[in-house]
Amino acid sequence: MKIPILVLTLAAAAALAAAPTAEVPYPANYRDWTHVKSMVIEPGHALHASFGGIHHLYANAGAMVGYRTGKFPDGAVIVFDLLDAVATDHAVTEGARKVVGVMHRDAGKYAATGGWGFEGFAGDSHAQRAVGANAATACFACHQAKRAQEYVFSSYRP
Amino acid sequence: MKIPILVLTLAAAAALAAAPTAEVPYPANYRDWTHVKSMVIEPGHALHASFGGIHHLYANAGAMVGYRTGKFPDGAVIVFDLLDAVATDHAVTEGARKVVGVMHRDAGKYAATGGWGFEGFAGDSHAQRAVGANAATACFACHQAKRAQEYVFSSYRP
Repeated sequence: MKIPILVLTLAAAAALAAAPTAEVPYPANYRDWTHVKSMVIEPGHALHASFGGIHHLYANAGAMVGYRTGKFPDGAVIVFDLLDAVATDHAVTEGARKVVGVMHRDAGKYAATGGWGFEGFAGDSHAQRAVGANAATACFACHQAKRAQEYVFSSYRP
Repeated sequence: MKIPILVLTLAAAAALAAAPTAEVPYPANYRDWTHVKSMVIEPGHALHASFGGIHHLYANAGAMVGYRTGKFPDGAVIVFDLLDAVATDHAVTEGARKVVGVMHRDAGKYAATGGWGFEGFAGDSHAQRAVGANAATACFACHQAKRAQEYVFSSYRP
């Protein structure tokens, strides 16, 4: 009888220990997901240092449920795909990728940051993490303002 | 024996008569398709009168085969989704839809314009046609320059 209890106890302890630093997985194949909307942030904008460029938001099927119903289920993932904005000849085109930002819904795993895991993958890397353990200050501090929309700034453009 | 021949003859005549003005269908559910790339065309650009604003290109599964292989199969559809570009506070956001441009691949039906049917649906309308019978001059005249890419200007941004 002792062994099963020990196993359960260790599993519970591991789950608790892992909770605050649960890694957000890279959003594989997000370029096949639904395009939500886009925006260009130019020099002079308050968020230019962090988010200057052209960005596109992509949603997986779970996140689309969230955009439609206001309730994002566990497993919903939103990607903020930020590219350089190349302004030439009265046009803005897409340049190199700056960061792939991710919001990954899991109410249990990411309870400390509103039920969302936040991460940024630098450039085209699937491994180089720009946020890591700093999600609360680097991401959630701003997203908290959108509590009534489950911390999501964007809305789907039909 | 006379009736079937008459039916065939009428059907063939109808097909021939319909060929030059074959209507391009509205691209139902294109917002669920793959987002290919985006661009902003500003005042001062040579194409601003026709295409000023922010546009997104979307591809159905067949068109994605074309982007990947260089060969667009019949049934491939590319959408050029043009929205007003609203420039405020050092940012460009998406405004009202101006036109939904469509390239619809059917080598037989649209042989006169490189195997592509071209159409534009005004604003959010699924019925108000901006191109109609003018595809050769309004669309294909420019797209002809891209013969080596099967008349497609865009390429897929990974």
